[in-house]
Amino acid sequence: MTISSKILILRTVSQVRQWRAKLFSDNQSVGFVPTMGALHAGHCSLVRKSLEENDKTIVSIFVNPSQFAPHEDLDNYPRTLDRDLEILESEFSDKQVDAVFVPKVSEMYPNGISLDIDKQKGAFVNVHGLSEQLEGITRPQFFRGVSTVVTKLLNIVQPTRVYFGQKDAQQCVVINNLVRDLMIPTKVRVVQTVRESNGLAMSSRNEYLSKEMKDRCSIIYKALKEGASLYNENREKGGKVNSSIIIDRIKDIVSQNDEFEIEYVAASHPESLEDVELIEPGVGAIVSCAIKVPKESSTEKARLIDNIILQ
Amino acid sequence: MTISSKILILRTVSQVRQWRAKLFSDNQSVGFVPTMGALHAGHCSLVRKSLEENDKTIVSIFVNPSQFAPHEDLDNYPRTLDRDLEILESEFSDKQVDAVFVPKVSEMYPNGISLDIDKQKGAFVNVHGLSEQLEGITRPQFFRGVSTVVTKLLNIVQPTRVYFGQKDAQQCVVINNLVRDLMIPTKVRVVQTVRESNGLAMSSRNEYLSKEMKDRCSIIYKALKEGASLYNENREKGGKVNSSIIIDRIKDIVSQNDEFEIEYVAASHPESLEDVELIEPGVGAIVSCAIKVPKESSTEKARLIDNIILQ
Repeated sequence: MTISSKILILRTVSQVRQWRAKLFSDNQSVGFVPTMGALHAGHCSLVRKSLEENDKTIVSIFVNPSQFAPHEDLDNYPRTLDRDLEILESEFSDKQVDAVFVPKVSEMYPNGISLDIDKQKGAFVNVHGLSEQLEGITRPQFFRGVSTVVTKLLNIVQPTRVYFGQKDAQQCVVINNLVRDLMIPTKVRVVQTVRESNGLAMSSRNEYLSKEMKDRCSIIYKALKEGASLYNENREKGGKVNSSIIIDRIKDIVSQNDEFEIEYVAASHPESLEDVELIEPGVGAIVSCAIKVPKESSTEKARLIDNIILQ
Repeated sequence: MTISSKILILRTVSQVRQWRAKLFSDNQSVGFVPTMGALHAGHCSLVRKSLEENDKTIVSIFVNPSQFAPHEDLDNYPRTLDRDLEILESEFSDKQVDAVFVPKVSEMYPNGISLDIDKQKGAFVNVHGLSEQLEGITRPQFFRGVSTVVTKLLNIVQPTRVYFGQKDAQQCVVINNLVRDLMIPTKVRVVQTVRESNGLAMSSRNEYLSKEMKDRCSIIYKALKEGASLYNENREKGGKVNSSIIIDRIKDIVSQNDEFEIEYVAASHPESLEDVELIEPGVGAIVSCAIKVPKESSTEKARLIDNIILQ
């Protein structure tokens, strides 16, 4: 095992199991924050919550190939391990992260992993009924990849609690169902989205954007908040609220910037993720969107997602 | 918790977790034998192995709906709980089974479970590349059901070791891959097939057969052994052995009984389960078959499987 200045770095499954075994026998609780690295304030809020709630905290940094399609940004996804470790070492003052799990692809997928879903062999986990809509429309293999790697990581770390950010709203629903359906003995904790001061949701993919574009992208959350206000106004008039007026308002606002390409804006049932036509107060809805925006110094676009919860 | 005369009967997930938690803190090893009940000498050999190798042993009895297709024998599958408990209480003299987990369907599938695969929602586990051939041809949802329920059970029981019978050869390969790929912290132990004195592999489905039919079915294992002899003769002549001569010999012998319907006889690579044309000594093959034979007092047929390992 390599020991960094402050945090234990674990590189293999057996190193994690060994670390965990001792904590089992000491009856210590373990909080786990799975990440793909490129850490930002959003991740730090998950880590902070884990430090508060558990005796020990472990963070994983692993860019999971199986959730990327061949045409997606796996190769270019930001990998900033040194900076990530520095953040984990310097960001938390009262209590430190105890271990970081940084496996190679061959450690997580000993038989290799093709990005071509038809060539993928071996055990995969899929949450049917919650993985096909919203993000799943343009990224049909995304949640199968997420569900599979999260199952592996939970079986390796065996945490008391695992932490996910509300920014990835559909992911939170998928993981909640995964853990419940497969009876994984871990508690799922969802932590609210951390935003830049202008409202833009923190995301590792924000690194693709110029400073100016980040400011322009703040319109996305402003639009979601406008949608929420509209819901609240209508809700006060009594009864259910037609989701289309909210969706249309959000689309109108975002499309004022003609460089933005709206992939979807949707109002979904908070548990089934089915499209909701009439939003029922008390049941509410997740209003989520995916917007493609220009990358800095590239003709390609970055794909940003965000959401707001209506109660 | 209900306490039977000798063995603790656990009916809920939380009862099992409570039982298991104490053993974790006492640092005791746990052996687990998952069954669908209708226990016979085959199951008992798994239990015996578990008793030998572990501090504590738990058996589950659960007829898993998700591995049955709508037209299969879920409703008629033998359910003999009282007799099963009696066997578990009386069969082992030196050391006793410690607990039996007997969940209801609603405990294992809190959201319900449709037999129609298109209507199944929630988290499912599938071992791609190993679930589609052999048994998977006529039972396309079988291994998805098995893989899913075994994952659930392993996450509930968290055993040190789990026991399966070699009779279900493909199941053993699927589960070995499942546990390895999903990094489940359990050791898979495969125990050799137990047979009646006439050679017929023990199976809960043998209960569908008359005494006379059981005797006639002993030809299945005799045919497999003939195939193995033929392999060994050819192997001694040196080099690889053409699988078709072995398969043909087995089919010839089984089809002497015209009431038997051969579903498949196949020679498969022991790890990839791909069809093997030339069997390489040292690598070997699993020669397996599924044969439909007449049920007692019914016009339907029972489907028996068996296999022999060539080295």
